[in-house]
Amino acid sequence: MKYDIKVKVGKDELSFGKGVILLMQKVEKYGSLSAAYKEMNMSSSKAWKILNKAQNDLGFALLESHAGGKDGGSTRLTAKGKEIMEKYNSMMAEIDKFTFDTFQKYFEKGE
Amino acid sequence: MKYDIKVKVGKDELSFGKGVILLMQKVEKYGSLSAAYKEMNMSSSKAWKILNKAQNDLGFALLESHAGGKDGGSTRLTAKGKEIMEKYNSMMAEIDKFTFDTFQKYFEKGE
Repeated sequence: MKYDIKVKVGKDELSFGKGVILLMQKVEKYGSLSAAYKEMNMSSSKAWKILNKAQNDLGFALLESHAGGKDGGSTRLTAKGKEIMEKYNSMMAEIDKFTFDTFQKYFEKGE
Repeated sequence: MKYDIKVKVGKDELSFGKGVILLMQKVEKYGSLSAAYKEMNMSSSKAWKILNKAQNDLGFALLESHAGGKDGGSTRLTAKGKEIMEKYNSMMAEIDKFTFDTFQKYFEKGE
């Protein structure tokens, strides 16, 4: 047997979860939103849609762009964006471990 | 802040989760599949689709029909159907409680 767990958080909507986090992690890695969504095989419009939904719901920006340089500037996480990403990841580390153990207990032991 | 958690289980596919469980609980209550999906505002085709997907994946029947009587018989859970539903619900009771506590710890304390 196998399982999958999805947890979304948000203020008025469930706007923040795995998709936005993955995008943010790749922005952190590449310093570029387009490099991020391209690596995820995500369209530009889908990336902006999930980002805007989260930003509007949470009430703060997750990303910020910096102009300058011959490569046309870069995109980084805001301090608040980094903070909520880290909170979510820390929470998920605990929930994932607990879910793994509990799934084993009910569905794998003694089968 | 609010959150939502979804856990699906299955053998080769993630075929078994909240939707099938809710349908099964209503079948148990009414003794009728059509009464069950109607109360959920679910179409007959959608109900059969999620049931067949789960049954094919798990390799056993979740429901069984009994003919007879002037009301045209009844539908009940199989023993194996009841067993997996109870396992899933017990597992989810633990995971839901843990997730609630962990979400509070990261997103509600001190805000």
